[in-house]
Amino acid sequence: MAKPTALETLTEALQCLPGVGRKSAARMAFYLMQQDTSGAKALARALDDAAARLRHCESCYTLTEDVVCATCLDTSRDRSQLCVVETPADQAALERTRAFNGLYFVLMGKLSPLDGVGPREIGLKRLFDRINPESGASDEQAPVKEVILATNFTAEGEATAHVIAQALKGLPVRVTRLSRGVPVGSELEYVDVGTIAHSFIDRR
Amino acid sequence: MAKPTALETLTEALQCLPGVGRKSAARMAFYLMQQDTSGAKALARALDDAAARLRHCESCYTLTEDVVCATCLDTSRDRSQLCVVETPADQAALERTRAFNGLYFVLMGKLSPLDGVGPREIGLKRLFDRINPESGASDEQAPVKEVILATNFTAEGEATAHVIAQALKGLPVRVTRLSRGVPVGSELEYVDVGTIAHSFIDRR
Repeated sequence: MAKPTALETLTEALQCLPGVGRKSAARMAFYLMQQDTSGAKALARALDDAAARLRHCESCYTLTEDVVCATCLDTSRDRSQLCVVETPADQAALERTRAFNGLYFVLMGKLSPLDGVGPREIGLKRLFDRINPESGASDEQAPVKEVILATNFTAEGEATAHVIAQALKGLPVRVTRLSRGVPVGSELEYVDVGTIAHSFIDRR
Repeated sequence: MAKPTALETLTEALQCLPGVGRKSAARMAFYLMQQDTSGAKALARALDDAAARLRHCESCYTLTEDVVCATCLDTSRDRSQLCVVETPADQAALERTRAFNGLYFVLMGKLSPLDGVGPREIGLKRLFDRINPESGASDEQAPVKEVILATNFTAEGEATAHVIAQALKGLPVRVTRLSRGVPVGSELEYVDVGTIAHSFIDRR
């Protein structure tokens, strides 16, 4: 058993998927090769294609196939509002709400000092250039009037929001944060203490 | 939004994996494109490679890269015992026990009349030729003396085992079935009634 077989290599490769361990990967590999080789080939093509074609939008840094993504190019959107999110998935979640019609800035990560992810790695400089009207980069853009921080409500997401808010102090922009509170449809009895406390503080 | 984007195509393609629905697929697609494009490329290569190289063993019908698989070629194995399993994954599970040193026959499925899977689709004819000493196909093989039915203990697996046992009646082979019973390490209090009943019937 010197060289790994094609099946072993495939099982290994499938483990790069999030949430897929050794056992699921083996199950997937057997399934694909037994029952769905055409699906396997289609997946291979989609992976290659996506890896080759996707790049970062020059304006908001989200994943796109174009130089500037469709959202940034959409002239019906309010260019004075900029919503900062961690990932394209978060952006997609916000888009589904249809509650926001401004532009986005995608950090592609969050501050995580223990993993060596600092302000530079998540593109804070790029965000700053995008907002700061004095820097050359944003000449053609309409000025941003409000930055909405929509990083996750985890320790790292909160830290990221805090750091960005600090960095933007002194600039002529309003900085807001998504509200914390009781989820829609839930009963107070079953909501955790921290959330209720926050929804008291942020009450309107 | 006429043509699907590369990301949408990838999300769609990932849903061919067993146990992966729309949401997991979207998460996987975002993850791969954001953080692990080299993993995505390696997976694409492994998929293509496996789909191109894997075929069925001429002797036992399992997945292999050769004409006859390593297990069937292994001369230290007992050629008089033939263990019938549903899938290569089941075969791998049995191999891990190191309790069996005979050969295998992999059905690549189970009887499932509702899905249009009958005796022909799961290769019962092939199995019959493999065992029946009068048919020409098994000339070079040592005669099979015992057929161990190791299909799953589901309704369909049991039906498959029953049909095979019926088909082999009259042939000079002993047909056995894996024993049903209480799983090792479990307490009777928590074992389901059917299993306990079977372990009574099959007591030794």
